[in-house]
Amino acid sequence: METVTIKLLAERLKLSTATISKALGDSHEISEVTKKRVFDLAKELNYVPNAYASSLRKNKSKTIAVLIPEVADSFFSIALNGIEEVAIEKGYHTLIYLTHEKLEREKAILSELLYGRVDGALMSVSSETDSFEHIEDFGKKLPVVFFDRVASAPATAKITTNDFECGYLATKHLIEAGCKRIVMLSISKSLSIISERSSGFQKAVADHQLDPATCEVVNCIGEGKTVHTTLTSILQGNNRPDGIIATVERLTTDIYLVCQQLGLQIPDDVKVVCFSNQASAVILNPSLTTITQPAFEMGRAAAKALLKRLKNPYINLEEESEIIPSVLTVRSSTAGKNSTF
Amino acid sequence: METVTIKLLAERLKLSTATISKALGDSHEISEVTKKRVFDLAKELNYVPNAYASSLRKNKSKTIAVLIPEVADSFFSIALNGIEEVAIEKGYHTLIYLTHEKLEREKAILSELLYGRVDGALMSVSSETDSFEHIEDFGKKLPVVFFDRVASAPATAKITTNDFECGYLATKHLIEAGCKRIVMLSISKSLSIISERSSGFQKAVADHQLDPATCEVVNCIGEGKTVHTTLTSILQGNNRPDGIIATVERLTTDIYLVCQQLGLQIPDDVKVVCFSNQASAVILNPSLTTITQPAFEMGRAAAKALLKRLKNPYINLEEESEIIPSVLTVRSSTAGKNSTF
Repeated sequence: METVTIKLLAERLKLSTATISKALGDSHEISEVTKKRVFDLAKELNYVPNAYASSLRKNKSKTIAVLIPEVADSFFSIALNGIEEVAIEKGYHTLIYLTHEKLEREKAILSELLYGRVDGALMSVSSETDSFEHIEDFGKKLPVVFFDRVASAPATAKITTNDFECGYLATKHLIEAGCKRIVMLSISKSLSIISERSSGFQKAVADHQLDPATCEVVNCIGEGKTVHTTLTSILQGNNRPDGIIATVERLTTDIYLVCQQLGLQIPDDVKVVCFSNQASAVILNPSLTTITQPAFEMGRAAAKALLKRLKNPYINLEEESEIIPSVLTVRSSTAGKNSTF
Repeated sequence: METVTIKLLAERLKLSTATISKALGDSHEISEVTKKRVFDLAKELNYVPNAYASSLRKNKSKTIAVLIPEVADSFFSIALNGIEEVAIEKGYHTLIYLTHEKLEREKAILSELLYGRVDGALMSVSSETDSFEHIEDFGKKLPVVFFDRVASAPATAKITTNDFECGYLATKHLIEAGCKRIVMLSISKSLSIISERSSGFQKAVADHQLDPATCEVVNCIGEGKTVHTTLTSILQGNNRPDGIIATVERLTTDIYLVCQQLGLQIPDDVKVVCFSNQASAVILNPSLTTITQPAFEMGRAAAKALLKRLKNPYINLEEESEIIPSVLTVRSSTAGKNSTF
């Protein structure tokens, strides 16, 4: 069967391929009469645009997929609310898929989604995701927009926060509160957010002449270790850190518990700052200093970018990228010795 | 077009309707030869079983829907993990739909799902859901299993915890810790879980001869009030409660904050117990006494019941109902004055 391309449509209608493209993109430059001719033929020949499917498919699903690692993290539960607000507003359905931080699950979900269930996807990659072919393959068929945890390919909209600056800011805040040996806790060797936050951390350590040998990034996940055992081994001994930066929310409980078990006082013995959106930060003992991400706004922006693309397949998704800043909220867990916090 | 029924299949094949039913249900009582005849004709005539679709549909979606009010509540995020564990094990996909506690959203999602996207649904109804026709209509076409927040109709499997006993237990615990004026905080007038927990509360109040006039169930949601303003008005004045039972997790932060703002000490002035699965209960200030629900197990049981039914459309889902008990975990927020907790 002959593949229906823009070129074929152009030949049949005796128009230029540029005119066909613009007509399909609903450009103002093209007359309504021409647009109708193009659309009618495209429909008749069942033309399916390659890299921007869904615009002409017979059964638009009016559904978008959201791939996230988990919902227990407040960032994702709040981001979902932002995504759904926009989706509902525009008459779209949202399907939520959990990868449980597994690359294999992520691959399986994306390949399943190509069978026409959705018009496009929003995704935050799993902590295991260190290659992107599966996302590129998906991106050739359907539009994808990244939020928070992005992949280097395919080229598309990336809705992120200022992770580098926040890594820097959290570290600088701990240094100013008196910390000399700071550890940044990671959960992945490949995640974009972790590498950005780590770079900001290392820059702050260098800028403030701390000893890089006592300020390191430690991965808490994998290699048969639990977060609890990793933290226990880090926080024992004389040369233990006096400052901790947790790059994800779910490390919080273990940090507090291990400090309690080892008899370490927060903030006197160890100061703690977490990247976290949990409402309970303010009622913890002590209340937790956080880098609060604009989760709702990031969800909204990601959904808006995708839906804009679904409305007009000719927009360049890369240009819809956005960086929405996070906020450092100082609370008791990083208070100095004489602070009244 | 003639509706294809079991009766029609029976007539055409000159078999009894019971035999057709058993054959379709893959019963051991029926020979393979007969089963093949029945299946072939059913397929040829495009027979779609009424109340137990999916078994013979040409395109089994191998997908189940999960309708939940929100994911920010740890109960639901943990239950989802239980559901997905079973689903993945059995080769099923899970689609998560959030109702955001809105009856209208719940109706829209269920009606959309009837267009063949899924083979069945697991659901926990929204806090607004006070009528069940939309679920009954869905249940006539596809199997549905309730977990946690159940509806009185349709008759199907209900996976719940011992809400009545837990309402009783939480109240008795507060009474034994010295509380005389206990308030149970609700978020809905119609939810099954709230009415069970309330009944347990009222029974404990009566059994322990507390004054029912000072022990009431208060709805924190709706009528233009926020949880914060409702709590502030409850906790002010001389006759304020000395014990609070929160029926859902997300009330925790507001309870702690309002107490802090009014200068009330937990547990000395007010003791607090929450129905909650949040990991951070143990690191709150003070640590929080909880009724911990078997969220993961409830998710697993609900998914198992539904998948059992999808495998065999003739099982009686009602018989798959299960009550899995919760656990009271006592921590500092309910300690007596001289307690060493």
